[in-house]
Amino acid sequence: MKIAILGFGVVGRGVYEICQNLSELEVVRILDLPSVGQVLPIVTFDYNEILEDEAVECVVECMGGLHPAKEFILAALEKGKHVVTSNKAVLAAYYDEFTALAAKKGLCLGIEAAVAGGVPYLAALRKAARVEPLSRVAGILNGTTNYILSRMAGEGSDFAVALKAAQELGYAEADPSADIDGIDVQNKTVLACAMGFGLAPAPADIPCFGIRTVSDQDVARARAKGRVIKLLGEGQLIEGRLFASVEPVLTPADSLEAAVPMNFNLATLEGASIGTLKFYGQGAGSLPTGNAVVQDLLDIAAGLPLCPPAGAKPTLDLTALSARWELRLAAAVADEAAALLGDAVALREEAGEAVVFETAEMAAAEFYAVRKQLQEKDAALFAARIL
Amino acid sequence: MKIAILGFGVVGRGVYEICQNLSELEVVRILDLPSVGQVLPIVTFDYNEILEDEAVECVVECMGGLHPAKEFILAALEKGKHVVTSNKAVLAAYYDEFTALAAKKGLCLGIEAAVAGGVPYLAALRKAARVEPLSRVAGILNGTTNYILSRMAGEGSDFAVALKAAQELGYAEADPSADIDGIDVQNKTVLACAMGFGLAPAPADIPCFGIRTVSDQDVARARAKGRVIKLLGEGQLIEGRLFASVEPVLTPADSLEAAVPMNFNLATLEGASIGTLKFYGQGAGSLPTGNAVVQDLLDIAAGLPLCPPAGAKPTLDLTALSARWELRLAAAVADEAAALLGDAVALREEAGEAVVFETAEMAAAEFYAVRKQLQEKDAALFAARIL
Repeated sequence: MKIAILGFGVVGRGVYEICQNLSELEVVRILDLPSVGQVLPIVTFDYNEILEDEAVECVVECMGGLHPAKEFILAALEKGKHVVTSNKAVLAAYYDEFTALAAKKGLCLGIEAAVAGGVPYLAALRKAARVEPLSRVAGILNGTTNYILSRMAGEGSDFAVALKAAQELGYAEADPSADIDGIDVQNKTVLACAMGFGLAPAPADIPCFGIRTVSDQDVARARAKGRVIKLLGEGQLIEGRLFASVEPVLTPADSLEAAVPMNFNLATLEGASIGTLKFYGQGAGSLPTGNAVVQDLLDIAAGLPLCPPAGAKPTLDLTALSARWELRLAAAVADEAAALLGDAVALREEAGEAVVFETAEMAAAEFYAVRKQLQEKDAALFAARIL
Repeated sequence: MKIAILGFGVVGRGVYEICQNLSELEVVRILDLPSVGQVLPIVTFDYNEILEDEAVECVVECMGGLHPAKEFILAALEKGKHVVTSNKAVLAAYYDEFTALAAKKGLCLGIEAAVAGGVPYLAALRKAARVEPLSRVAGILNGTTNYILSRMAGEGSDFAVALKAAQELGYAEADPSADIDGIDVQNKTVLACAMGFGLAPAPADIPCFGIRTVSDQDVARARAKGRVIKLLGEGQLIEGRLFASVEPVLTPADSLEAAVPMNFNLATLEGASIGTLKFYGQGAGSLPTGNAVVQDLLDIAAGLPLCPPAGAKPTLDLTALSARWELRLAAAVADEAAALLGDAVALREEAGEAVVFETAEMAAAEFYAVRKQLQEKDAALFAARIL
């Protein structure tokens, strides 16, 4: 199959390199920026050349960002070309539009590389969902935040030191907001829900709380309770209603999640007959992510449809889940927190200049509303669901 | 697709139950023993009825054992029917014969359920090996032994108590030899090597050491060294030579392997671009294993080939791997062990009435030869590779 790669950065180069060893795939065009220059004879700066080239059967979009990625993907599909992309942001924002056009044109949209990098998680969701409705998709889906949390848990580093180390290793960007505020996981959770449950919620409809405010005391307190803090993206189907969230969780110290080191990912699916499956590996990087792109390309070349589950879509409903949370905030806001939580306060204790609450079981929607109100009073508050 | 199930025990019933909800698959015949009786109208006691029924496109063999499973599988293929089986023993013994006949007839042989039960590990190997040669397949592939080792590590139970608990829970059979002596993992390792490297070694050619002799002191000593004992089946491709083994390993206490609880499985693959992937889930049980069978059936119904990797086969060569081992044996045999190990003794220490050695890096073939000689002197010796 002849393919064109859009964007010759980290992922695009990985795809190109892996394809050199595969007779089934031939990279015939690469779209790059004029500022970079023509490093290979097949590089072009004009997307129209690729669109008009009828030999190109599949476009691999590795540019990132919303625009012009969205327009380029739609144009490729309109021209009858399959699309494979590693771009979780554009997929989460326009998933329904892309899949509708692909279906109308009888084309494939490959998105494996957009979630958990090299870990074949979306393919596993697609396969598992053929057999039975899934009940849960969840995971440590961001290597940057897992690296930061691992450093904090392992060496007692504070957040700023761990973030700096992540940046020096190239795991975190100069502006790390998309990672540490959970936006990247939010986009991936949209796609995991789409593949597992057939519903792609709007990213903004998934409540999202990152790890920007986690302190070394929070990490130490978790350890003392036999827990480890991890950032989890999750979707649960509960009596036909879909709960979804991105937030820190306190996972038992002997869980598989707690053992995920460095910048690795671990993604979970659950179903009635299959039970719990977990998938571990590199969630980012040139070759692992390139490998995931190539898996989609080989499936498309072999004529596999790559379809997400059809059928009735669940409704997003944040009251579907009841759980317990830990909430740490400034002592000055503690009484207001207690009042807002009301009967749901199960434990309240001093922790230096902060106060820590544990809630009783309560509806997620209710806790998130309280969290939001209190964030306006204490922007440094930390909250984590207790698993 | 119309299918027939051979054997209506734990796995066969799971397959039947899951198929009831899938329009793509129809169970039209079940072969059972006359002694069981005709529990369903589609039950027959005569395999010829299934062979002669042209409507049956695929035979699902869930009888277990070598005979008549082997003859039934070959007869189904001869009659032009696809075969899916969960029977690792018959697959490991006759893999080349089955795959040659299936290829000659243009038929599929589905074996997903034979390794790691519900965990989609063989499919992952097949997909990963399309992109690049794999360098390692390995795993905790037997739930019974992992349950026993988990009980011993968690509660300090001795082996007999943990085995009895496993038997009471139905995880271990009345005669547990196939599990605790590693034979089950040996068969699964054959199949993992077949799918990952294209070579199915003869089971007997894979050195195999089980957990029958592990003592509570061995477990405690491992813990003191920051390690956990797990039974690992493994294949490694080292400069074109295939190393394979089944043996206890001392894995770091913070590794994912150490965190695998109860009767769960965790299987690993490694490749140059994909890095390390790990797959976790239920390695046995009616519905998880049935689910894996059904995944193969759905792939076959969709026209997917389920082919293992083609190309040059590696050679099995047990000198390919160098590693370090721990060896615990009776004090009376210690001097002989020291003499056999020679320069490879890195550490020797008293441990009650036993002596414990740690070796320097040495060729696996060499260590296994020493282990075999010493086993004849001390049948209760314990040996584990240090990871």
